[in-house]
Amino acid sequence: MHHQQMSIDIPDHMVHAAILRALEEDIGRGDLTTTAAIPPDIQGQADIVLREPGVVAGVPLLPVIFTMVDSRLQVESLITDGTNAPAGAVIARISGPVSGLLTAERVALNFVQHLSGIATLTAQYVAVLQGLPTRLLDTRKTTPGLRAFEKYAVRVGGGTNHRMGLYDAVMLKDNHLALLATLGMDVAAAVRRTRNAVGPTVRIEVEVETIADAHLAAQAGADLILLDNMPPPMMRQIVHELKGDAAPGTLPLLEASGGITLETLRAVAETGVDYISVGVLTHSVRSLDIGMDWHS
Amino acid sequence: MHHQQMSIDIPDHMVHAAILRALEEDIGRGDLTTTAAIPPDIQGQADIVLREPGVVAGVPLLPVIFTMVDSRLQVESLITDGTNAPAGAVIARISGPVSGLLTAERVALNFVQHLSGIATLTAQYVAVLQGLPTRLLDTRKTTPGLRAFEKYAVRVGGGTNHRMGLYDAVMLKDNHLALLATLGMDVAAAVRRTRNAVGPTVRIEVEVETIADAHLAAQAGADLILLDNMPPPMMRQIVHELKGDAAPGTLPLLEASGGITLETLRAVAETGVDYISVGVLTHSVRSLDIGMDWHS
Amino acid sequence: MHHQQMSIDIPDHMVHAAILRALEEDIGRGDLTTTAAIPPDIQGQADIVLREPGVVAGVPLLPVIFTMVDSRLQVESLITDGTNAPAGAVIARISGPVSGLLTAERVALNFVQHLSGIATLTAQYVAVLQGLPTRLLDTRKTTPGLRAFEKYAVRVGGGTNHRMGLYDAVMLKDNHLALLATLGMDVAAAVRRTRNAVGPTVRIEVEVETIADAHLAAQAGADLILLDNMPPPMMRQIVHELKGDAAPGTLPLLEASGGITLETLRAVAETGVDYISVGVLTHSVRSLDIGMDWHS
Amino acid sequence: MHHQQMSIDIPDHMVHAAILRALEEDIGRGDLTTTAAIPPDIQGQADIVLREPGVVAGVPLLPVIFTMVDSRLQVESLITDGTNAPAGAVIARISGPVSGLLTAERVALNFVQHLSGIATLTAQYVAVLQGLPTRLLDTRKTTPGLRAFEKYAVRVGGGTNHRMGLYDAVMLKDNHLALLATLGMDVAAAVRRTRNAVGPTVRIEVEVETIADAHLAAQAGADLILLDNMPPPMMRQIVHELKGDAAPGTLPLLEASGGITLETLRAVAETGVDYISVGVLTHSVRSLDIGMDWHS
Amino acid sequence: MHHQQMSIDIPDHMVHAAILRALEEDIGRGDLTTTAAIPPDIQGQADIVLREPGVVAGVPLLPVIFTMVDSRLQVESLITDGTNAPAGAVIARISGPVSGLLTAERVALNFVQHLSGIATLTAQYVAVLQGLPTRLLDTRKTTPGLRAFEKYAVRVGGGTNHRMGLYDAVMLKDNHLALLATLGMDVAAAVRRTRNAVGPTVRIEVEVETIADAHLAAQAGADLILLDNMPPPMMRQIVHELKGDAAPGTLPLLEASGGITLETLRAVAETGVDYISVGVLTHSVRSLDIGMDWHS
Amino acid sequence: MHHQQMSIDIPDHMVHAAILRALEEDIGRGDLTTTAAIPPDIQGQADIVLREPGVVAGVPLLPVIFTMVDSRLQVESLITDGTNAPAGAVIARISGPVSGLLTAERVALNFVQHLSGIATLTAQYVAVLQGLPTRLLDTRKTTPGLRAFEKYAVRVGGGTNHRMGLYDAVMLKDNHLALLATLGMDVAAAVRRTRNAVGPTVRIEVEVETIADAHLAAQAGADLILLDNMPPPMMRQIVHELKGDAAPGTLPLLEASGGITLETLRAVAETGVDYISVGVLTHSVRSLDIGMDWHS
Repeated sequence: MHHQQMSIDIPDHMVHAAILRALEEDIGRGDLTTTAAIPPDIQGQADIVLREPGVVAGVPLLPVIFTMVDSRLQVESLITDGTNAPAGAVIARISGPVSGLLTAERVALNFVQHLSGIATLTAQYVAVLQGLPTRLLDTRKTTPGLRAFEKYAVRVGGGTNHRMGLYDAVMLKDNHLALLATLGMDVAAAVRRTRNAVGPTVRIEVEVETIADAHLAAQAGADLILLDNMPPPMMRQIVHELKGDAAPGTLPLLEASGGITLETLRAVAETGVDYISVGVLTHSVRSLDIGMDWHS
Repeated sequence: MHHQQMSIDIPDHMVHAAILRALEEDIGRGDLTTTAAIPPDIQGQADIVLREPGVVAGVPLLPVIFTMVDSRLQVESLITDGTNAPAGAVIARISGPVSGLLTAERVALNFVQHLSGIATLTAQYVAVLQGLPTRLLDTRKTTPGLRAFEKYAVRVGGGTNHRMGLYDAVMLKDNHLALLATLGMDVAAAVRRTRNAVGPTVRIEVEVETIADAHLAAQAGADLILLDNMPPPMMRQIVHELKGDAAPGTLPLLEASGGITLETLRAVAETGVDYISVGVLTHSVRSLDIGMDWHS
Repeated sequence: MHHQQMSIDIPDHMVHAAILRALEEDIGRGDLTTTAAIPPDIQGQADIVLREPGVVAGVPLLPVIFTMVDSRLQVESLITDGTNAPAGAVIARISGPVSGLLTAERVALNFVQHLSGIATLTAQYVAVLQGLPTRLLDTRKTTPGLRAFEKYAVRVGGGTNHRMGLYDAVMLKDNHLALLATLGMDVAAAVRRTRNAVGPTVRIEVEVETIADAHLAAQAGADLILLDNMPPPMMRQIVHELKGDAAPGTLPLLEASGGITLETLRAVAETGVDYISVGVLTHSVRSLDIGMDWHS
Repeated sequence: MHHQQMSIDIPDHMVHAAILRALEEDIGRGDLTTTAAIPPDIQGQADIVLREPGVVAGVPLLPVIFTMVDSRLQVESLITDGTNAPAGAVIARISGPVSGLLTAERVALNFVQHLSGIATLTAQYVAVLQGLPTRLLDTRKTTPGLRAFEKYAVRVGGGTNHRMGLYDAVMLKDNHLALLATLGMDVAAAVRRTRNAVGPTVRIEVEVETIADAHLAAQAGADLILLDNMPPPMMRQIVHELKGDAAPGTLPLLEASGGITLETLRAVAETGVDYISVGVLTHSVRSLDIGMDWHS
Repeated sequence: MHHQQMSIDIPDHMVHAAILRALEEDIGRGDLTTTAAIPPDIQGQADIVLREPGVVAGVPLLPVIFTMVDSRLQVESLITDGTNAPAGAVIARISGPVSGLLTAERVALNFVQHLSGIATLTAQYVAVLQGLPTRLLDTRKTTPGLRAFEKYAVRVGGGTNHRMGLYDAVMLKDNHLALLATLGMDVAAAVRRTRNAVGPTVRIEVEVETIADAHLAAQAGADLILLDNMPPPMMRQIVHELKGDAAPGTLPLLEASGGITLETLRAVAETGVDYISVGVLTHSVRSLDIGMDWHS
Repeated sequence: MHHQQMSIDIPDHMVHAAILRALEEDIGRGDLTTTAAIPPDIQGQADIVLREPGVVAGVPLLPVIFTMVDSRLQVESLITDGTNAPAGAVIARISGPVSGLLTAERVALNFVQHLSGIATLTAQYVAVLQGLPTRLLDTRKTTPGLRAFEKYAVRVGGGTNHRMGLYDAVMLKDNHLALLATLGMDVAAAVRRTRNAVGPTVRIEVEVETIADAHLAAQAGADLILLDNMPPPMMRQIVHELKGDAAPGTLPLLEASGGITLETLRAVAETGVDYISVGVLTHSVRSLDIGMDWHS
């Protein structure tokens, strides 16, 4: 659902629930300091400012956070999500009752620092892929409770989302296949069994570790094939044998995965795989340093 | 509230709510892959294993997560939270219907990897303080929605918790004091105003940037004084002037803060401050590498 | 999530939430009649019985409903979902405190009557398709709040689920395409624009009304093509031109839709389309007549 | 609670909860199609139109549904609930951002189609009673989760609501009475026991199958007597013996029930019973055909 | 819904929600004292003891409260609700982990003290009515959030419940009637208008201040007539004129209300009214003194 | 969180949740009387009026309650919380649709009567302390679900809040200390064990029954010492020995507790204790008599 002030493509009810949860967690039964020390009617103004350069994400959350604390606060967003901004850049300016500003500050910064950290890291990976058709994917290795937000930040940083959860695509991983093997099913049989059980709107991905299995998966109609922890030459061979001269985007799509770093990323991409997935984008996030400066 | 299988000191209703949220986020309307591919009655067993050394946190969550997905799963915890374990250590063994095991795997790993990452980093900081009375504190720079869990992981790693939120202690920060200064109140007046407004169970901390303000805060009865971004010699002087030969723990307590790293931590502690707070413990978490190995 | 007594493939938290909602709706602040008239410790037994023949769906919900009202009730399921049972068949036998049995009766019957009504109607459509590879699909025309249950009942009746909602597949309908046309995009451009914006796990369906658009959609890489309200010969032509002798399941999949009835269903299927979707399965449900008989 | 734009007599919090649930169910983590294909700022307009004649119900929900998805959408209601409108009638006109319009369309139609189906069927039954004092009642055989809405639609169609649930009136049904008989209580004793246990604001209805029991119930002070599955002459006799020439509405009220159809309804009403209850009004709902037409 | 250990006639989901809310309110993010000071595995035992005589209410809540905090606690109830017990009486004995016992103590006492206070006061009023057919009623003047519990305590004390809320009976009060009078409706017209609008399961009460209005209400078919703040002789006259020698319980029922105290109660009852309602039962509750004694 | 119309220092989300709960409890599925009898568009005006003198609390809740029922109602607050007003004083004037006014009346009065009852009683206690530095404290003996509101009313009446719950301060009570004694810890050891386990923002209170234990607690660094049920001379001696001539507010703070009444309060205060806590403020509340008067 859409909020008038938001251009973020996460439904409103999810945005509000996550922010309310964070505010309840921090404010609890009340902000003791502000209540005790700050007269209720004093007006003020503050800026949210980058303390280091980075790709900003989460700006559309700021009006929601501040007005949820005090509906009289005015939030002017000065930068759009996805901007690669220098240190010192002002993201947003908030004005109104100082008490609400002080109460909301930490939650606001926690959100935008975390999401900007993800967008900035994603953008660094994406930059490495420049000029190649290969696209960067995230994973389900996200912080519990924040997946929609973290995957949004990946999009903001230029990445592409893999499935959101267990419910919107099939992925036959090594453990599934090992189990089905004990029941006498090879990769092709596993794909066919699965295809028969799901509806026509569901894509099926299969994780393979050998060239032979990649062929079996492709022949059985897998939409995506995950090449797990393979050396680049092996990936290149699979790309060649399965895709030949096909246009980018032709099925089956090939995804590389497994411990790929900023250093190894380009070499993997040059094998011709369609996608590379990187867990570190969301499971090991360094917050971008962002603070609040008050107008004197 | 206490769960029979948990030794974690977070109330049960918070534990269950956070896990339910994470499961709903990942599973949504159902695990397509497991439903389509895995026969419902197959039994299996798997281990949760450290892929790198670290301090483990979150093990008591595992039985809750797995049995919430399938109440027939058996979870045997093999390591207690706080253990500094080597790569290869088995944290827990789960057995029962394979379908539930597969469905719960990712959420279980996401929790324990995130919390163990925090505990491991905390333990690295705590190790630097060895032999000194100074204690390591966390901050409110936590991931939205996970504060109670992240602060638990800090305790597991040997750290001490600063306040949980705005509701359980007063902290007059630079912005509060600047505002009160415009109303004619110095640090001492601010502390007295605040003390008068809160009940007798509330501690008051004051952030100061000068030696003079530290004295004003102490004289006005501040319980804690935050020395923000001061050079160590200045901290040492404040410790000397305010605490003299007082026993550790004597009020006012002194806390150092501001960009302190593993490299600078010991020098700051040697100034004699009672506490050092470090935001990176929770705002920039690298997941500990933990995986699931299936028994063949 | 899996409940020990349930073989229904809807996550436990969804099942419990829907049942709790129904019980709260009916019981409110208490069952006045039972409280006033029925002594609390009387034991009894009752059967849930088909009053007309049909395909049963929802039996795994019965233990959840009755034990949520009184945990001492014993529920023995005697028929599995999907059984085409005659009038008089006993679905389940419940025994225990009569008070709880009486309080839960109506909610239990409301669920199983509604879902069995859907399964029975679905099975009638599926029977018409016998011997053909074409599969029957449901739609998003479901009763608000019950989609997961109604789509489950469609599966029980032998149907296949189309997408669950707006979140797990793309469907470019006439209105989307008309709008994009005003921006200068034909069907092929619309598909390409969409493909570029979504991740690799998302299938894209396109609704077309002409043979030319079907070709454009197929060339642009649509995974499914919805043939809306076409005369069967036109469908047959599209099947021939797009699929030729391809094996069933080959992309693009073709789906027929639009006012198809039990009478017209087979003729449509014989055109060779892969799927036929029918809204009436869930938007116009006649409850199967099911009652409760008490043991004297 | 009252919503400024609603004339529906269901409390606001129930309306919003049901709509939010339906939107979450359909939209989930986001409308992939609209997000991917439709530019966010395009404006448009659409009409909600009857595709067949019927009695409209649920129009006051439309502004709530559309503005919950996008608060910028304008909804102009053109028909009030209860109108018996012809095919082609425009119920409401919505204008604003096309993206929100597309996202909300299905949920809006699902609600108004379902409720209008109930109102239309109810009106058909009510029409048969024209000129007679007998009133048409609904039952508790409603779709789980939607009772308040379905009973509202019955009122819109001209029907009268029986009790809302187990909490707002007593109804001693055959099973209650059979059980109490085993404890030595006849119908009169059962009514007296119940009357003694409930407060003075509670009406008591008793289901009877014989003329003798009807007399016992009346003498013991039952407010309503349910004549279950009786032949019309028997009902007529009971009406005569219990009510004589009493004015309509005199206690005890008499209600006929049990498999009454459009064909048999008038004959039952002519026996002089005060009320006739019909389960099919809510347990077997055919959606009224309603669609959305876009303005080109 | 029924909980195995409870004989309280409030549905389980309401009981659990109220207790969970109270525990969350008191425990919040954890019981600091118990966590810090009490070793987790120490076992103990304590009694819940009356410190003054009174009628006990809320005992069935104790097992729910204590086991929600720690499922290992054993609660033995020693007195049933409604017992008029002397000072020193032991209500329940709890044994198990001391930590959970200490954490749950205050919430447990708060519930049972509050409800026993209501039951005790109610019993004092009921005792005054001994030998008379008149029954004591409560009102809607209850503590926000606890109505079902407070009305339960009234029943435990021997009182009878008036309507639970605005949803389960009609009551035309002075303000409704004054407004309808401005529209030209007298009491009889108001009753008829209302009767026509509600279903047959709804009782209608009318508040009157004159004998003439009592007659109008009775003639129009009011089920109950509230005699507000009338002198006893006037009540006696109305009883005589409306009820004559009718058996107790004959409609219309007469209810006296308005500032009736323990001192004036019997005189009012002797006028022959059927019911007397007393707001003080729930709006001005003195807790019964109940404490916890530890076994040494 | 702050609501534009509220000056109450309880976060908005807590205010709205409590009011919504109360409205749902009273209104349920709808206000039958208003719906049936009152035409929807009639406008009116009413005053909320004190029927006896007292200290008013809860006025800022009134706009929230009335507008939650009907957003068109206008609420003008005429008295601020904390005013000691005479009988007849008008607290607030509400105008708008009469239907909403009637529906919301009871919940509005229930809140403001309950909170004003607490504020009035608190003010009576506080008046007794006039001229002395001793301050009045509340306890955790509050009505389940309303603690934040009841403690707010205590503040309004001039009292000071003790801890909000188990989560924001440590209190070692007799039971904790008795248990620790069995483990060989005296009061001093208990305090030190606890201090070591909690963070620096947590105050520790210790309950003592002897002068010796008071000294032990003070020496071990307790911030507060609770003198339980001591005769005033004994309290005076402890004050003298522990505080001497120290300025008010010097640690350790001394709190008297245990059956202190309006009659004994001043004598206890004159012993020089810093705080006196009184459970009756919240556990035995007599509602202030407040009603609604309609404008004719």
